[in-house]
Amino acid sequence: MSVEIYWGSGSPYAWRVLLAAEARGVPYESRLLSFSAKEHRAPAFLAINPRGKVPALKDGDRIVTESLAIMHHLDGLGSGPALFGATAEERTRVLEWCSRIMSDLEAAVYGVCRPLMAAKPEADAAAKAEAALPALHRELGELEAALAGQDWLAGGPAPSAADFAALPFIKYLERAAGKEAARGLDHGVEPLAARYPRLAAWVARIEAMPGYERTYPPHWRAG
Amino acid sequence: MSVEIYWGSGSPYAWRVLLAAEARGVPYESRLLSFSAKEHRAPAFLAINPRGKVPALKDGDRIVTESLAIMHHLDGLGSGPALFGATAEERTRVLEWCSRIMSDLEAAVYGVCRPLMAAKPEADAAAKAEAALPALHRELGELEAALAGQDWLAGGPAPSAADFAALPFIKYLERAAGKEAARGLDHGVEPLAARYPRLAAWVARIEAMPGYERTYPPHWRAG
Repeated sequence: MSVEIYWGSGSPYAWRVLLAAEARGVPYESRLLSFSAKEHRAPAFLAINPRGKVPALKDGDRIVTESLAIMHHLDGLGSGPALFGATAEERTRVLEWCSRIMSDLEAAVYGVCRPLMAAKPEADAAAKAEAALPALHRELGELEAALAGQDWLAGGPAPSAADFAALPFIKYLERAAGKEAARGLDHGVEPLAARYPRLAAWVARIEAMPGYERTYPPHWRAG
Repeated sequence: MSVEIYWGSGSPYAWRVLLAAEARGVPYESRLLSFSAKEHRAPAFLAINPRGKVPALKDGDRIVTESLAIMHHLDGLGSGPALFGATAEERTRVLEWCSRIMSDLEAAVYGVCRPLMAAKPEADAAAKAEAALPALHRELGELEAALAGQDWLAGGPAPSAADFAALPFIKYLERAAGKEAARGLDHGVEPLAARYPRLAAWVARIEAMPGYERTYPPHWRAG
C-alpha cells in the first residue's frame, strides 16, 4: 500500500516532501488540500494532523509531520538514491545543511519576500525588502560557495534532503522578484544565473529530475 | 582524542549540545567563548566557524556546526543512550520533535521572552509579551500532552536529542518570567508545575542528570 502525502499548493515545506518522494522513488497517493477552501483546517485533515499543517504523511496507521521527519521516513521506503546519505557522517552533513536552510536561509528569504508577496503590498514594501537583501545575499553566497566543485549541497552523487529543503525557497524567491511590488528593486536574484551561476545550474538540475513537474505548485502555473 | 565543543553562556543552541554530550557520555574539551568580549567574532573562532555562531564542534579535522547536526555527530561517539533512537522509525520521531521545537516552540518562546529580556525593556514590553502568550501556551500544552504516560518527548527509556533541543528554551522562559519587566504579567509559566506538572517533572529529570551542572549557563548563576 502506498503512502499518502497531504500537501498544499505553494507550501515550501510540502514541496520538499514531494521532491523527496519523487527522487527516492516512493509511490504515493497525492492528497492536495485547498488552502483557500481551508481544507487544512477541516476536521478530516485535523484528524491526520491536529496542528492543521501540511505536509503530513500517512503510512498505514503511522502519521508523520514536519518536512524533515517526513523526508527521513521516505528515505526508509524508497529505492532511489538515499536522501540522508549512506553513512552516519554523511547524515550529519545533510542534517547540518538542513538546519542552516531551515533557520537562516528561510528567515532571509522570508525577510525579502514577505513584503513583496503580500496580497496588498504596503507602500514601503520595496524598501522593506531592500533592507533584508544583505542577509539574503549572504545566504545565497554561501549556497553558491558550497556548490563549487560539487553538484549537491551536501556533496555526493545525488540530491539529498538538504537540496530539497532549499529548492522551494529559491523558487519562491524568484517568484517574489517577479512581482509588481518588486519593480525597480535592485534585488540581484533574477535572473539567478547572473550573480549565482552555480546555484542556477543546481536549480536546473533539480528541475530536470523525473517527476519534478508533479511537484510544481499548481496555482503558480496560473501566474 | 576528545572533541572540542565551542559554546557561549546562555546560548540555547550551545546548551543543547552540552546536554547531549553529557547524556551520551562523550568526553569533550569545553571551549567557552565570551560573547561580551566578542570571541565568537574573533579570527580564532571564525577559522572554526566562518559564520561566527556557536555551537561548533571540532573532532580532529572535522568541524560540525548547527546544534542538530552536532548532536547527531555526538551520537556516533558516545556509549550512553542513543540520542536519535535505536531504529529508523525512532529517528524519524526524534527528528519530528526536533523540527517542531526548532520552528514552533522556539518562535513561541522568543515571542514572549524577547520583549522581557531586552537590556532596556520598552514601556510596552509586558503588553508585547502578553500578546504572544496564547501561541506559547499552545506549544507548552502540546509538550505537556506528549509527556502523558512517557518520560521523554519522543518516547523511549532515555532522553533524546528532542528533549535536549527543548530544555534550554523552557529554562529561558522561566528565567524571562522572573525578570522585572514581567512583573504583573499573568504569564502562567512560573512556577511551571502549577499549569504544566508533567513538563516540570521532565525538567527536573533532566536537571538530575549527571553532568547537568556543567552545562548550566555560567552567567545565569550570577542572577
